[in-house]
Amino acid sequence: MSSGRILVAQGGGPTAVINQSLAGVVLEARRHHGIERIYGARHGVRGIVGEDFYDLTQETSHNLELVANTPSSALGSTRDKPDLAYCQKIFRVLQAHGIGHFFYIGGNDSADTVRIVKEEADAAGYPLRCIHIPKTIDNDLVGNDHTPGFPSAARFVAQAFAGANLDNASLPGVYVGVVMGRHAGFLTAASALGKKFPDDGPHLVYVPERVFELDRFLADVKAANDLHGRCVIAVSEGIHDASGQPIAAQLAKHLEHDAHGNVQLSGTGALADLLCEEIKAKLGIKRVRGDTFGYLQRSFIGCVSDVDQREAREVGEKAVQYAMWGDAGGNTSGSVAIKRTGFYSADYELQPLAAVAGKTRVMEDEFISESGTDVTDAFRLYLRPLLGSGMPDAYRLRRHVVEKRLGA
Amino acid sequence: MSSGRILVAQGGGPTAVINQSLAGVVLEARRHHGIERIYGARHGVRGIVGEDFYDLTQETSHNLELVANTPSSALGSTRDKPDLAYCQKIFRVLQAHGIGHFFYIGGNDSADTVRIVKEEADAAGYPLRCIHIPKTIDNDLVGNDHTPGFPSAARFVAQAFAGANLDNASLPGVYVGVVMGRHAGFLTAASALGKKFPDDGPHLVYVPERVFELDRFLADVKAANDLHGRCVIAVSEGIHDASGQPIAAQLAKHLEHDAHGNVQLSGTGALADLLCEEIKAKLGIKRVRGDTFGYLQRSFIGCVSDVDQREAREVGEKAVQYAMWGDAGGNTSGSVAIKRTGFYSADYELQPLAAVAGKTRVMEDEFISESGTDVTDAFRLYLRPLLGSGMPDAYRLRRHVVEKRLGA
Repeated sequence: MSSGRILVAQGGGPTAVINQSLAGVVLEARRHHGIERIYGARHGVRGIVGEDFYDLTQETSHNLELVANTPSSALGSTRDKPDLAYCQKIFRVLQAHGIGHFFYIGGNDSADTVRIVKEEADAAGYPLRCIHIPKTIDNDLVGNDHTPGFPSAARFVAQAFAGANLDNASLPGVYVGVVMGRHAGFLTAASALGKKFPDDGPHLVYVPERVFELDRFLADVKAANDLHGRCVIAVSEGIHDASGQPIAAQLAKHLEHDAHGNVQLSGTGALADLLCEEIKAKLGIKRVRGDTFGYLQRSFIGCVSDVDQREAREVGEKAVQYAMWGDAGGNTSGSVAIKRTGFYSADYELQPLAAVAGKTRVMEDEFISESGTDVTDAFRLYLRPLLGSGMPDAYRLRRHVVEKRLGA
Repeated sequence: MSSGRILVAQGGGPTAVINQSLAGVVLEARRHHGIERIYGARHGVRGIVGEDFYDLTQETSHNLELVANTPSSALGSTRDKPDLAYCQKIFRVLQAHGIGHFFYIGGNDSADTVRIVKEEADAAGYPLRCIHIPKTIDNDLVGNDHTPGFPSAARFVAQAFAGANLDNASLPGVYVGVVMGRHAGFLTAASALGKKFPDDGPHLVYVPERVFELDRFLADVKAANDLHGRCVIAVSEGIHDASGQPIAAQLAKHLEHDAHGNVQLSGTGALADLLCEEIKAKLGIKRVRGDTFGYLQRSFIGCVSDVDQREAREVGEKAVQYAMWGDAGGNTSGSVAIKRTGFYSADYELQPLAAVAGKTRVMEDEFISESGTDVTDAFRLYLRPLLGSGMPDAYRLRRHVVEKRLGA
C-alpha cells in the first residue's frame, strides 16, 4: 500500500488554467481519509531534487479556489528536462519523504519524467503511484482530444486576431502576427476562429506542419493584398524550410538554445520583423506591421475559456481518483487524457505513461486546407466549443453609399 | 442657421471604444428634429476629400449598439495630417453636401484639422458647427482629465503585466515589455496597476518623460534582479536619450517615417530585442525575454473598461448636444473635454478648439516617482477608477515550508 503522502508539481510553460489542475489535486486529495499530507514542490523537478516543498495541507480551500483562477504556475515551474540520473535523484527524495503518490502537471517531457521515476520506484520495489496530468498551450500531447491550457491560449489568439483584423481594416496594410508553437500549429490555426465576415482576416495562416517557402509566401501575400486591399497573416514561430531549419534561425544572429537543445523562438520579435522587411522590400507595400504575441498568449490575466477551466480542474481531480481507486483496468499510474464524446462533451481516461511520454502530436491533415494557408471547417468544428462561452463578437456598419456631388 | 446634415468621421489610431463615440453622435442626432441626414466619412479626412460617405441615417439602432461595442474605427481611419490646402478641400466638400455639423473623433492632430476647417467656414461666411470629440490611447490631450480609449488600453496593459509578472515568477528571469506612447508615458505607467503583492512586477517602469540612460538602466535591472531573483520591466516605445533621440532609432537600420515626420516605433520588436541583448551581454543574465505589446494593446477584442465605454458614448452624445444647443457660454463649436469631479465621477465641457489642437500633454511630475522608474500613489489614485469594474485579480499560495530530510 502506498503511503498517505502526496507530492504535486508543475513543469514547463505556464498556462491560464494550470492552477485549476493543482487545486483539483489538492482539494480532491483532502476528501480521501488515507491522505495525511499534500506537498507541493517549488519549480517542478528542480524543487523536488532540492527538497523545496510547501505543505499544501495547510492551505485554506478558499485561497486554493482563488489560486485556481489565477494564471501561471502557482508552485513555480522549470525548464529542466531530467535524464536518468536526475530522475534517480527525484526518486531518492520521494523515498526520503515517504511519498506514496506523485502528480506532475506538464507536457510530454514531464510525462517522460514521470515514466522514468515510476520505473525507478518499481525497480526498487517501492510502492509509488505516479500520475501525469496533461498541460500545454501547444496542444501537442498524443492520445488527447486536446490539452488543458490550449483552449484559453487559443481564445486569446482568436480574440487578438479578431481585434487585429478590425485594426487592419481601419488602417489598411499588411499585418503579421507571430504565434507560439514550435512543432504543432494548433495555436496559430486558432487565429482563424477570430474570423466572422467573409473578408475578415487572418487571410493567410502558416503552420509548422507545412514547409514554408519565402517566395510562395510573398506571392500569397501579394494575392491577398490585391484582393482585399489589406492582408492579415498568422504565422507560427516554428515555420521552417524544407530541410527543417527554422525560418527564425536563418536570421537570428545570436541563437540561444534551451536545456532541451531547442533554439529559442519566443521572447524575440525577430521573425515578425524579418517577414515584414521582406514584404516591404519585395512587394513594395508601405504599411507593414508585425507583432509577436510572445508571453501574452499564455499568461494574460483575464482571457480564459470556461470549458478549459472546468476540464483542467477535472483532470486534477481524476488524477487523484485514479491513484486512489485505479481506472477500469485497475491501473493506479498513468497519464490522464481528455477524450471527446459529443458536441460538446468530454470524458477522461488513464493512458499508459509510455503512450504519451516524449511524443509530439501535430495538426491532423484534415485540419489544414489544401492550400496549406488556411484551416478547414473540421478544425473550426473541433476548436469552437473549446473556446467557451462569452466570446466577444465583432460587428460592422452596413454600406449605404452616399452619392458624390463634386465627383471623384 | 446650420443645415440639418451631419458629417462624422474617425481619425488616427483605433481604440476599444471609439465606436461608442460614433454611436453616441448618431443615436443622439436622431433625437433632434432638425436633423435630416447623418453621413459617416470613410477613413477620416481622406474619405471626406474623396466624398466617400456612408449614410448612417439608414443604420438600425440595434446594429449601431453592436458596432459601439466593437473595437477599432468602424468607419475606417487615416494617418493623413491635413495642411491648409487639404483643409480647404475638406471645406469645399462639406459645402457641396450642405453639411451643417462636422464631428471629428480623434487626437490632437484631428482637433487641429477641425480648427482649420472651422476657420475656413467662418472666413467664407458658411454656417458650420465643428466639434472635436476626444480619442487617444496615449492620454495626451491637454485640458482633459483623461481621454476615451486610454482607460481600456491601460486595462489591457495592467492585465498583461499582471500575467507577465506571474509567468516571470514561475520561470524567473528578466522580462521586458514595450508599451505604446511616443511622448506621454501614461500607458506604460499603467503597467504598475497590475501589481498586487509587494514583490510583484513591474519592478521598473521607464517613461518618455524622463531621459533614458543605458548604464543607469542596466544598474537598475541588476539591483532589482539581485533583490527579487527576477525582474519585470515596463518600457515606453518613446524612451530617448538626453538629446531627445529615441533609443529605438539608435538601433533600427531602416528608419520608417510616417506622414507626420515621426519615426515608426510600433509594429517592430527592435527596441525590446535590443534591450534584452544589452541585459544578456552586460549583466550575464541568461533568461531574458522581451515582448512588444504592439497592436494588441489598442485593438484586442474583449478587454475594455466599462467606465471608458460609458464616457466614450457620452462625449459623442454631448458633442451633438453642444452643436445643437450650445454650451453655457453659447458656443456651438469646440472640443469636448472630460473633467473629473469626484472619486470617481466626471463631467463634460466644451473647450475652444485652439486650446487642444496640436498640443501634447505628458505625465505630470506628481505621477512619477523620484527615482524616475516607478509611479506614485497619486497616479494609482488617478488611474484605478478608470479601469472599470471586474478587473481580474491574482492570488498566490501561502508559504508553509516543509523541512528537508536529505539536506540541501
